[in-house]
Amino acid sequence: MYVVLVYDIKTDEGGPRILNKTFKICKRYLTHIQNSVFEGELSKTQILQLKYELENVIRKDVDSIIIFKSRNERWMEKEMWGIVEDQTSNFL
Amino acid sequence: MYVVLVYDIKTDEGGPRILNKTFKICKRYLTHIQNSVFEGELSKTQILQLKYELENVIRKDVDSIIIFKSRNERWMEKEMWGIVEDQTSNFL
Repeated sequence: MYVVLVYDIKTDEGGPRILNKTFKICKRYLTHIQNSVFEGELSKTQILQLKYELENVIRKDVDSIIIFKSRNERWMEKEMWGIVEDQTSNFL
Repeated sequence: MYVVLVYDIKTDEGGPRILNKTFKICKRYLTHIQNSVFEGELSKTQILQLKYELENVIRKDVDSIIIFKSRNERWMEKEMWGIVEDQTSNFL
């Protein structure tokens, strides 16, 4: 399945640590395409694994993650306006 | 078309003003579902109008916007993990 994941981690005292962990988990499964946005192809099992890992890290009362799933990447068209992030960057 | 829009506005000196303008423009066209994420149903013409408005506001060298378009909302499945933002909130 083609997946787009967006996270929103609250920037309070514990925020940076959670953000760092969340980023690293997402990065193992998906491609980083914008500040808090990832995309990629995942199986249903991988989505469950990713969900399990993330739910152990994020705070369910303040942080949120949205994933959009499409059975076929061709059903989704992507457009970028403004600066386009270098997908080959080694950020983090 | 079903549209998901995610923006990433650089938080430098001019950032907050750009962010505020970007938010207000997106809010006129779409529903706010997470910090910097909007979704909704737009025609091709509305997408072009939205693009035109946003490109007059964002800085093309530092800010970025990604939009994902799907001809049919049913082709996209959405899941929320963690806190779910109240879509009826009057934030901003």
